[in-house]
Amino acid sequence: MTKLDQPLFNRLALIGTGLIGSSIARAARAQGAVRSIVATARSPETRRRVAELGFADQVVETNAAAVEGADLVIVCIPVGACGTVAKEIGPNLMKGATVSDVGSVKGSVLTDMAPHLPAGVHFVPAHPVAGTENSGPDAGFPELFVNRWCILTPPQNADTQAVERLAMFWRALGANVETMSAEHHDLVLGITSHLPHLIAYTIVGTADELGAVTRSEVLKFSAGGFRDFTRIAASDPTMWRDVFLYNKDAVLEMLGRFNEDLSQLTRAIRMGNGEALFDHFTRTRAIRRGIVEIGQDSPAPDFGRTHAGLPADPLPRPYAADNE
Amino acid sequence: MTKLDQPLFNRLALIGTGLIGSSIARAARAQGAVRSIVATARSPETRRRVAELGFADQVVETNAAAVEGADLVIVCIPVGACGTVAKEIGPNLMKGATVSDVGSVKGSVLTDMAPHLPAGVHFVPAHPVAGTENSGPDAGFPELFVNRWCILTPPQNADTQAVERLAMFWRALGANVETMSAEHHDLVLGITSHLPHLIAYTIVGTADELGAVTRSEVLKFSAGGFRDFTRIAASDPTMWRDVFLYNKDAVLEMLGRFNEDLSQLTRAIRMGNGEALFDHFTRTRAIRRGIVEIGQDSPAPDFGRTHAGLPADPLPRPYAADNE
Repeated sequence: MTKLDQPLFNRLALIGTGLIGSSIARAARAQGAVRSIVATARSPETRRRVAELGFADQVVETNAAAVEGADLVIVCIPVGACGTVAKEIGPNLMKGATVSDVGSVKGSVLTDMAPHLPAGVHFVPAHPVAGTENSGPDAGFPELFVNRWCILTPPQNADTQAVERLAMFWRALGANVETMSAEHHDLVLGITSHLPHLIAYTIVGTADELGAVTRSEVLKFSAGGFRDFTRIAASDPTMWRDVFLYNKDAVLEMLGRFNEDLSQLTRAIRMGNGEALFDHFTRTRAIRRGIVEIGQDSPAPDFGRTHAGLPADPLPRPYAADNE
Repeated sequence: MTKLDQPLFNRLALIGTGLIGSSIARAARAQGAVRSIVATARSPETRRRVAELGFADQVVETNAAAVEGADLVIVCIPVGACGTVAKEIGPNLMKGATVSDVGSVKGSVLTDMAPHLPAGVHFVPAHPVAGTENSGPDAGFPELFVNRWCILTPPQNADTQAVERLAMFWRALGANVETMSAEHHDLVLGITSHLPHLIAYTIVGTADELGAVTRSEVLKFSAGGFRDFTRIAASDPTMWRDVFLYNKDAVLEMLGRFNEDLSQLTRAIRMGNGEALFDHFTRTRAIRRGIVEIGQDSPAPDFGRTHAGLPADPLPRPYAADNE
């Protein structure tokens, strides 16, 4: 793997070392995108684990200590904590440093962090649209961002060179970069990420509370479709609590539209309107094709899930006595 | 792979050769579960393709011709067509033959097919809970049913030997077999399969109709969660139209519960009740673990989707002029 001719940044400070933070560290190191990495995490257990995993050159105890001398600071924590962290690190930031984040909501991050950042620091919020259902420093891997999009939402007065340098950092990690307003970001992600998560969390909860169908049955027969939802509904609870609290307006707007559409399909079912159902289901099929065509999902059936082989001994007695 | 010492059935007739029918043929042949396979499909194009693919020993033009001399008949078509097909094949069925299906709704199949089947024929409806988003004879593969559940819903007066023989057939194809009433099946699958599909079809439609967010943005940023839903919403439109028309009561019942739960979470978002959200999201995480533990989904993150490697040439110019 060809590394960069020279690092894009000298010292990267990562505040938060979960799935995203630890993947950034691993990828940045693999690509030679930064000279050194300093990391911190809130709990002593996590800091100890990060030191063991070794993806950072240095692990420090406080956010303020982490940012000292860093020319790139990336805050990788739930969006609800971003304001507090900005306040903590503000006084220690190096002049000319770029401060960014990875939060799934951008409007609130802009509002909460900007007031605490001193003049001469470049603030460029970012959101890599990538992840898995796993959390923590062990969950990260260097390829997480490859072919995924990273959205930058720089404030209007942002320094274009600083924005472009951060874009290059994300491209070095394999991501495609797009720039848009924080407001538009929150609307787009409201439908492509936040609403799907809310719906998945809801339906998994519904299935878990049915008296007539046991949990054991729900698990056993989940391959009928339900299991796909459980992956999303296994995402980090703190992160997602904050997403819904901090992108409330866009989520409620998308939810309103979803409810209208669900009412329409419900009515078609109740009235036995097969044609309306068929037309809707044909239209949605095309969206999948579009996603696969632009490389945002695998063309392999069933996400490429693997299948075990056929049994070698398929009970060769035609009339077994042990009926179940 | 050890084949069966002797086939469980002499001649398998498959009416319908889509994803499920063609997978049954491929698996039954691989396992030596039947001596010969005759298949039919409604359209001449499909019959021609089935002949080319060669997973059946014989391809015939009519349903009536297909079942002649067959001791196992499996109807693999959308549930809305099952009654008509039963009427067509009834007079030609061999005495002692077992007639089954693979429909995702069992109450309507029982009601629609049973009246057309002559005495001396064993009717054992079945539902293998397995599939992918692809359709047609090319989409099938022999491992589709391995470690998945096949639910049998025999009528109360069913011959236990015939039921057990069909169970052995499904076990030979790698499936686990469970028996329950058609009514209970329709309730269980209402939550583990039908409601998830309805929700996925809805949200994918909602995303496609937003003025403020373009379709291109929906596709690009779909890795935030949305893409998972598009797979399910790419399932066969005819099959799923019929599922909702024929399992209307159970689907509407589950939908009612889902709507209650969604209202509750919506209220928590609107009121800023982070604790309620956090508690709900923590509970749903456990369901995922349960599904992975019993082998009904992959423990690999992100369903085991593959990730491309890091770019070899990550744009090594620290200050590029081509800002986007």
